[in-house]
Amino acid sequence: MQQRSKDTRNHIIESAVALFCDAGYEAASVADICIRAGVSKGAFYHHFPSKQSLFLAILDDWLTGIDDQLFSSATPSGDVPASIQDMAETLGFVLNEASGRLPIFMEFMVQASRDHAVWDAAIQPYRRYQDRFAGLIASGQESGSINENVDPRIAARVLVSLAVGILLQAVVDPESADWDKVTSEGISMITQSMKRSS
Amino acid sequence: MQQRSKDTRNHIIESAVALFCDAGYEAASVADICIRAGVSKGAFYHHFPSKQSLFLAILDDWLTGIDDQLFSSATPSGDVPASIQDMAETLGFVLNEASGRLPIFMEFMVQASRDHAVWDAAIQPYRRYQDRFAGLIASGQESGSINENVDPRIAARVLVSLAVGILLQAVVDPESADWDKVTSEGISMITQSMKRSS
Repeated sequence: MQQRSKDTRNHIIESAVALFCDAGYEAASVADICIRAGVSKGAFYHHFPSKQSLFLAILDDWLTGIDDQLFSSATPSGDVPASIQDMAETLGFVLNEASGRLPIFMEFMVQASRDHAVWDAAIQPYRRYQDRFAGLIASGQESGSINENVDPRIAARVLVSLAVGILLQAVVDPESADWDKVTSEGISMITQSMKRSS
Repeated sequence: MQQRSKDTRNHIIESAVALFCDAGYEAASVADICIRAGVSKGAFYHHFPSKQSLFLAILDDWLTGIDDQLFSSATPSGDVPASIQDMAETLGFVLNEASGRLPIFMEFMVQASRDHAVWDAAIQPYRRYQDRFAGLIASGQESGSINENVDPRIAARVLVSLAVGILLQAVVDPESADWDKVTSEGISMITQSMKRSS
């Protein structure tokens, strides 16, 4: 893609994210997005065949970005509890970086529960997180840093649930807690209980 | 309230919950709700001054119900980690009972992030959970079942975050895990790490 074309695509995405956060996905029309982005409908449809495809592109960009940031530092052969703890720091970073755009995270959830195409697009990366965490925990059991009684799939779901719950509350009630600290303490509680008792 | 009037109110609430789940809060009009419930607009406005007040009534009923169920069995003077573990069972029960109606849980979150009146109505019971959990953990520290190094407010937020994250994923991807088991294991990991080391 040409740089100018890329810039236009990114600009449409940014405008749409802002609009979806303010007005909601359902209420925002392609025309509204074009006005906000200052682009013609022709330019819009050159990049995205529909509002839904734009929505899915935002979702995909976001999940891929989190994925890359989270797992880039994981070292399966090393101290897995410490790796998972490091990921908690990254989650805090993701959270701060995305803070203004987080209402759209809930839009994804709502649309996914209602629209099969969104569900399908959201569920694959989500299940990939679960699998990657489960794989990391299983490798920790092999290398001896994680207790062998832990069920990697269940433990992975516990970790992701905690992260999802924190993200959601940080959106709805950002002022009520130091969410970075809740993340770090919560992950620490879970990794402590997974550690091999020596 | 007369029994018949109560029945009508409950019937309007049930119809609205079903409609909000299917079509979304924004898309569902008072007229749609009346058609679904088979009541006149007069009957509707006798019970609820607006769609928003109905929405808030649903939220309040739901949160009060969860509150009663969760804390009815808590015994602050006894074994607090065991009490919290019992709550995990109750959460599984709440989850199963509410499974079909859970998409509305996300509607509340989305509306709360956008509408100050909804936010205000949602945030009070939510903060009350946090406070009740924090109080329970602090009483466990006094009676010696919880480690005194634990920060009750942070630990309460970790517990609620886990519960919220599980609820959300159980809505979006019910088939991908035994969510009762994830709840019970997750709470167990956290309570284990809060126990007083003897």
